Amino acid sequence: MIKKRIGLIRVLTTSKEELLNLHGHLVMKYYPGFEVVSRCIPDQPEGIHDYETEQTAVPKVLALAREMEREGMEAVIVSCAGDPAVAEASAELRIPVIGAGRSAASAALVLGCPTAVLGITQEVPVAIRSILGDLLVSDAVPDGVESTLDLMEPEGKEAMIKAGVSLAEKGARAIVLACTGMSTIGAADTLKERLDIPVIDPVKAQAAAAWTLLV
Amino acid sequence: MIKKRIGLIRVLTTSKEELLNLHGHLVMKYYPGFEVVSRCIPDQPEGIHDYETEQTAVPKVLALAREMEREGMEAVIVSCAGDPAVAEASAELRIPVIGAGRSAASAALVLGCPTAVLGITQEVPVAIRSILGDLLVSDAVPDGVESTLDLMEPEGKEAMIKAGVSLAEKGARAIVLACTGMSTIGAADTLKERLDIPVIDPVKAQAAAAWTLLV
Repeated sequence: MIKKRIGLIRVLTTSKEELLNLHGHLVMKYYPGFEVVSRCIPDQPEGIHDYETEQTAVPKVLALAREMEREGMEAVIVSCAGDPAVAEASAELRIPVIGAGRSAASAALVLGCPTAVLGITQEVPVAIRSILGDLLVSDAVPDGVESTLDLMEPEGKEAMIKAGVSLAEKGARAIVLACTGMSTIGAADTLKERLDIPVIDPVKAQAAAAWTLLV
Repeated sequence: MIKKRIGLIRVLTTSKEELLNLHGHLVMKYYPGFEVVSRCIPDQPEGIHDYETEQTAVPKVLALAREMEREGMEAVIVSCAGDPAVAEASAELRIPVIGAGRSAASAALVLGCPTAVLGITQEVPVAIRSILGDLLVSDAVPDGVESTLDLMEPEGKEAMIKAGVSLAEKGARAIVLACTGMSTIGAADTLKERLDIPVIDPVKAQAAAAWTLLV
């Protein structure tokens, strides 16, 4: 079987191969028919966690996406729930551009139920908000979490669980995790052990979107 | 590994086991972690292909969905792009209710590109239209095709290809197949051989949605 080559863009700058490839390896574990090549944008060791860091990232993501198309990738995944440069790249490139945020929100839309968003930014990412529309009933940021790195600490993980449980108690019938750092720490599985509603993991959602669109 | 049991509702009445299980077998082929139990609604040997046949089907689908929840299924898939009774079942049941139409349209929404719908009903199904919004740029029904059975004839297949090619020529950057009978005949693969854009198969889309939401 010839594997489909997909480029995956990390918005967290890292020289650690394992961290760089983490989302790409998950996508390939879920869908062995994909060969995923991961690259990260330069000079953003704390990733994207507010408006400024997002704006800074946009041209860098676009440049990587162009490079990946030139190299013959069949799609580009932007592995960030803020979908930085996804609209721009999508309008410009010929190949599908798949953002984690859009993928996760679209998966929730299938259910058509009241949905909550659990992320690390004070504002729900624009694309997620726009896709969910009236279905978006609440959102939260785990206490004390300001960047994807905080999620990797035990305190961040505890705060994530607390926030997720509270969203479900307030009536959400599905939770969209609006940060791919949540995938890194396996937040969806942790929350699903405690909650009886779908919890949508953005890396899973983008992998499934790529499969549905390409295979 | 304990498989997740999912109920799949066919809206085409059939006593042929192979036809009854066709979509369920595809879902299990794509996602071996699912055990899919297929059932069909009674007295609709021509399936759903217009407003009247859809209205007749709604209470039957709802009854089957309730039965499946009672039997302990972890989700219900309504394997019809018209999403009959999906909103009603979703509001009533505790388990996720996944419609083929919503799943396919949501997958296209990830791309955020001009999208066409190729189906068998003169009107684009309501849920698909509502999800795609302004992204829906054109739609078509293959010449001479009035029900899912027509698609199984060579003439129906030829007409399907012609309609798909024409939608792409008119500027669509993705095509949603708005009839699960298209999955039965492998229409997405046939079209992808001729077109350079994503063609979304509703049975694949509902399978991927179930995986993203449940696993």
